[in-house]
Order: sequence, then structure tokens, then C-alpha cells
Amino acid sequence: MSRIVMKFGGTSVGNTERIRNVAKRIIGETAKGHEIVVVVSAMGKTTDELMSLAGDLSAEPSKREMDMLLSTGEQVTIALLTMALQHMGQDAVSFTGWQAGIGTESVHRNARIEHIDTVRMEQALSDGKVVVVAGFQGLDAYGEITTLGRGGSDTTAVAIAAALRAEQCDIYTDVDGIYTSDPRYVDGARKLQELSYDEMLELANLGAGVLHPRAVEFAKNYCMPLSVRSSLSEDTGTILLEEPTMEKNLVVRGVAFEPEIVRITVGYEVPFNGSLAKIFTTLAKHHVNVDIIVQSIMEGVQPSVSFSIKKEDFAETIQVLESKKAELGYQSTNFEVGLAKVSIVGSGMVSNPGVAAQMFDRLRKEGIPVKMVSTSEIKVSVVVPESAMLQATNALHDEFGLAAVRV
Amino acid sequence: MSRIVMKFGGTSVGNTERIRNVAKRIIGETAKGHEIVVVVSAMGKTTDELMSLAGDLSAEPSKREMDMLLSTGEQVTIALLTMALQHMGQDAVSFTGWQAGIGTESVHRNARIEHIDTVRMEQALSDGKVVVVAGFQGLDAYGEITTLGRGGSDTTAVAIAAALRAEQCDIYTDVDGIYTSDPRYVDGARKLQELSYDEMLELANLGAGVLHPRAVEFAKNYCMPLSVRSSLSEDTGTILLEEPTMEKNLVVRGVAFEPEIVRITVGYEVPFNGSLAKIFTTLAKHHVNVDIIVQSIMEGVQPSVSFSIKKEDFAETIQVLESKKAELGYQSTNFEVGLAKVSIVGSGMVSNPGVAAQMFDRLRKEGIPVKMVSTSEIKVSVVVPESAMLQATNALHDEFGLAAVRV
Repeated sequence: MSRIVMKFGGTSVGNTERIRNVAKRIIGETAKGHEIVVVVSAMGKTTDELMSLAGDLSAEPSKREMDMLLSTGEQVTIALLTMALQHMGQDAVSFTGWQAGIGTESVHRNARIEHIDTVRMEQALSDGKVVVVAGFQGLDAYGEITTLGRGGSDTTAVAIAAALRAEQCDIYTDVDGIYTSDPRYVDGARKLQELSYDEMLELANLGAGVLHPRAVEFAKNYCMPLSVRSSLSEDTGTILLEEPTMEKNLVVRGVAFEPEIVRITVGYEVPFNGSLAKIFTTLAKHHVNVDIIVQSIMEGVQPSVSFSIKKEDFAETIQVLESKKAELGYQSTNFEVGLAKVSIVGSGMVSNPGVAAQMFDRLRKEGIPVKMVSTSEIKVSVVVPESAMLQATNALHDEFGLAAVRV
Repeated sequence: MSRIVMKFGGTSVGNTERIRNVAKRIIGETAKGHEIVVVVSAMGKTTDELMSLAGDLSAEPSKREMDMLLSTGEQVTIALLTMALQHMGQDAVSFTGWQAGIGTESVHRNARIEHIDTVRMEQALSDGKVVVVAGFQGLDAYGEITTLGRGGSDTTAVAIAAALRAEQCDIYTDVDGIYTSDPRYVDGARKLQELSYDEMLELANLGAGVLHPRAVEFAKNYCMPLSVRSSLSEDTGTILLEEPTMEKNLVVRGVAFEPEIVRITVGYEVPFNGSLAKIFTTLAKHHVNVDIIVQSIMEGVQPSVSFSIKKEDFAETIQVLESKKAELGYQSTNFEVGLAKVSIVGSGMVSNPGVAAQMFDRLRKEGIPVKMVSTSEIKVSVVVPESAMLQATNALHDEFGLAAVRV
């Protein structure tokens, strides 16, 4: 008998019909003899509706009261799902975040889980009940309701799985797993059976968007096997592990892409005392997310630093740079819009030198200019013209044999 | 500086516009220098909507899960009202039932408040905050969310007022007070300035329906002045006290009426050992609410007992009596439908003999037959033909001078 944590998102519990389906799915697992804890989000559009009510009353409602308001969403779902389970003859009990013992730091809208007191959950499991827990929420040391911010329910599920020493944590969603690339745009993109936490983190940060990075980090810290699977099919989905054992031959496991990138170049004169740090500190203060940073110092050329940002931060970035020019002490700025980022991700790169070279070579053959490069141990990202983004992605997907491998 | 508890029902907080109005109303009180605790119900139709979702999933959802589900309704209101107050510059904080320290017995859907731990409320009040509390809900000794059943938010308000030693508890509603009778049907019915708890209990049980009897009993037990007033006007409404000091000249303070009454008569032969008790015990087991009971034993006539029930319980009553005839050991039954109950209520009756006689005399003059009579120290009820209900009510309202007295 295994202990499994199952997490269902807002779409999966969007109406009573879907809640019934989720209940059937859960009973399918208990029928196999597993102990089950279920974590759920608020139903479909509930959160949006509550936020709209709040917006009617205040342009900037207090974060504490937003947590008070929004945490009702999951509480509705846990009650309804538990009723559905009981109606189908499955003994079950619902717990709010605080009833499940989820203690968080004392921060509203974006709290981190600090500890989980599992007494009530353990008792209910030993009574043979399915335990249905409200995701996304907890209680701080002062008895205040907190919420975990984006991806919060995924994090709740992983944290509970770790605290209860579950065998596995299954994230049920509307996709059936993690793909080698986006199948809507890449011929032959296919589902991966396994992926490492680190690879997932690189893919998630690059916009794969299925699992929140916080949940993946949590799983990595506790070595909790985390699967991403469809709530509509019986397929096993993709399992995240520390070290995948399947598809070991793959050096690259995924190709991600992100459009709407802008490159900013700032030229300066040496000496440029500490001002480089000042630029990025100032941008961070204005919540501009800087991604790739490349500095070039060549004989006979004005030294410069280039960095990439999202197009949505472009206006803010220009405004900050212009208004603080004297303070930042640079000479010139210029920018290039209409760019995109394409990245290859794979743990195998560490032990396979030449992957970046192979990538550049293929891009050269495709006639695609590379504007910026950034590398990590398991990732190489390039910035290319946005018009060539999908061509580059498809070419690299083919170059590293991702479509060829059987599922 | 007084401490006042204000309670607003579901209609008063039915949408964000109304919530804003309630917030203004509250700020009007804080501006007078009062310490304010506000108790609110779920917004308008929220409870019905949640119950309909539950009904989709289970014909008989567990009471625990219903409490889990329904208690979200008030939690939404407290968050929104607090945001509205804060937006208007009034410092405020919301508390769920459990955060407000409301401890109940361990019963779902109909729990009684056992104690209130006022620490958090006292702290917030001393910080100069308006405290906004979710009505209708509490927490039992096992950490389970409970709800108080019908009239629960009124009871929460009165209980908090008592625990915090407030000066007064104001129930804001969609009527502007308690009337001598229903102004829709009785010419000259007018609002009372004061009423005793006992009088209100008799009127409430007779269908006045503005305040739940439990809340009135609670107020009576703690001698908490309880006002019923309109959330739309500045009028002071009606104040409930142990002993009204105004309108002392009134022997009768109200005339209540209730249509759709059925009289059942059960004939039996002496000796009828204990079977009389058995009839009412059996009916109570089947949740039939028996109101007036009249037994008549006269020489030469078969002894019988008559009792009145609501029409909605008629079928159940007949079914119970028929199916248990042998066991109950009676001889015959007959019934009369199309009846109504008219009652006069007033504390002054105790010291004014002849009130009942005056009532019967007036009804005789009106040509209205009296089918049953029941008296208490502060009430006389008669059962009359339903067709004469409003005539009787108007006549008695006139007879006891209720319209004549100035407001």
C-alpha cells in the first residue's frame, strides 16, 4: 500500500460534473489500496470573480483581506469534492489549510510554507479516509490566514507529500505531461517519460508553464517524485526525478522558446566604477526582469553591456535608464526589438562537450543569426530574430534527435 | 465612548454597492467615538447558490461538509466589508468565527455557542480598529468548523455583545423595527419604540420573523439591549429590553396572526393509560410541530384531545396517526382545515385581568367563532376560521388601542 498525494487544478474542478469525475479518479486510486491525500485549487473562475468583487471596493485592497477573501475559493472545492466522494461511498474528510496543519511565514499573498503539522491528516488516513486539503493556503504563527501566491496549490501538494513521506506526488492538469517542445509549433514534439528536477526548472522558467518552479524546487529538495499527468486520461504522464533512468541516451531533453524579447545595449567609458551593478540594481528596484547579460570589452571598441528583457518591460526600462542617466554614468544606449529566445535543456550536456557548438553550427546552416548566448551546465540559450524563432526551435529539435526517440 | 455591536444581514450586504453603504453606516458610528464590532451574514443569495452546488453532488451531503461549504459565505463578506472600510480610511480587520474565538458545541448545522475567547477582538478594538466578524459560524473543541443554524448571525452578534460587555447590540435589517402588527394587512399598525424580550419571543414564535428566538433568548439571558432597525434609515428602530419603560400604558403590545392551521381531534375511551403522551411523543419523533393542545372531558361526551398543527405537517400527521392506530389506542380522529391563529401579546396582561374576556367579547361582536384557545402569562391565542383571520386581527388591534397611541 502506497501513500500518494494527488493535486487537481482549477480547471479540473471547474464545475460539479468535473468534480464528480475527479472523485471517480480518486476512487480508482483508493481501489488499488493506496492511501490518498488530495489537494485542490479553487473552482475555475472563482478566484477571478472574487478579485473582481474586491476591485469594486478598493483599487488596492489590503493583502491580508485578499487572503481572507481568496482562501474561501479552495474551501468551497474541498467541501464539494468531499461530498462527491462520500456520495460515491468513499469515506473522506476535508481540511482547510490551517486544519491540515500548514504553517507559513507571516506574509500575505506570497507566503512560504515553513512547517506542516500532520497530526490531523495522519489520523484521518489511519481512519481509512481520503483526505481532501485546500491548496494555496496556510496559517501564520499569529493565526492569520495566508496564501502562497502563484503555483501555490502545486507547492502545497509537494510539501504535504514530503511531510507525509508519500511515495509520489501527482499533479493532474489539462496537459498529459512535459513535452520535448510545444507540440502546437514543433513537428514531432513528444511527451517525455522522465525529466530531472533541474531540467524542469529550466523549462519552467523558460515558459513551459505547467508546473510552478517553487513546487519543482520543493520536490527537488525532498527528492519527491513528481508526476505531471492529465486528469482526463489514464496515461502516466511525465515523472520528475533527481536522475532520470529512462531516455538516458538523450543529451538534450527539451527545446523551449520565448518570443517578444528586447536587447538593450549600454555603452560606457572605462573606468566604469560600480556603475554596471548600479544599472541592474536600479532596474530590479523597478521590477524589470533582466534575463541574459553579456559584457564585451574589446580593444579599440567602446566597452558595452547588453542584456535581454521582456517586451512588456521595455517602456519601463527605457524610462528608468533615461531618467537616471547622470546617476548611472553611461554614455549611450541602443536597443533591438523583434527578438526571441530559444533554449536547449538537458542534464546530459555536462558530460557531452560540444553540444553548444553543435547548436551554433545547425543555426548557422539554417542561416539564423545569433544575437546573444547564455549557457549553464544544463542549458544553452540563444537570442535570435523573432521571425526565425520557430525555424530555430524545429531545427534544434531535429538536430538533437528529440522526435526520433520512441515514447 | 460606548462599545456597540452592529449586525447586518444578507440583504444589507447583497452586492458591493450595499457593502459600501454598510461601511458608511459603520463609519457614522465610529465618528461618534464608539468602539464598533460588526457581524455580517453571507451576501444575498450566496448560501442558496452554495447549497445548490452541494445538491448537485449529493442528495444528503454530510453536515460537516455543509458547514465547511457554507461558512465560506460570511468569510467573503467580512473580507469585502473590511476592504470597503479601509478604502474609506477606517482602520479595520476581519475575523472568521474561529479567529473571533467563537467556541461552539460539537454539532454541525445547528451548533450552540458555548464560549467566546475575546482576546483577538479586544486587542483589535484597543488598536482602534473596527472588528468585522463572520456571523453564523464557530469552531468546536476538535477544531471543526460549525454553523449555528437559522438566525445564527443574530445569535453571533448578541453573544459577542455579551462577551465584550457592549452597551448595545443593533440588528440592522430590511424592516425599521417591530410593529404592533403586520402593516401590510392591519390599518394603523405602527412601530413600537420598546418591547420586552418575552414579548418579542412570543411575537417571533408567532411568525414576526424579524429576529430569531435564539438571539432574543440570548439577549434576555445577558440583559443585552437589542435593537432592530433599518439599514436604510437613521431611525432608532425598536429596542428590546427586560422591562420597557415607554408605552407603559399598553396592556397589549402586538397582534400576530398565522394562516394555514389545521385542528386535529382524537377521540378515545377512558381509561387512556399514558396514550395521550404517546401520541405527542410519536408526532414529535416525526418532526410534527404541535402548537395548541386542548383536552376536553365532559359528562356524556366521548373524551377527546384537540391540537393544532401547521398545514405543511398535515399529511405526515395523518399518516402517523393512521399507521400507529393500534399502538396509540385511540378510537376516532377528525380534523378541520382552513383555520388560522390570532394572538395578542403584552407583558401588561399579567396585571390586567379580563384581557382574554375583552378579546373573546370583541370576537363575538365581530361574529367570529373561536375554535381553540391557549393562554400564557403574556399571550392569548385563538384559532379562528382562516377567512376571518385578518378581520380578527384588525378588530383586536383596534380593541386594544394599538393604532391610537402616538409613535
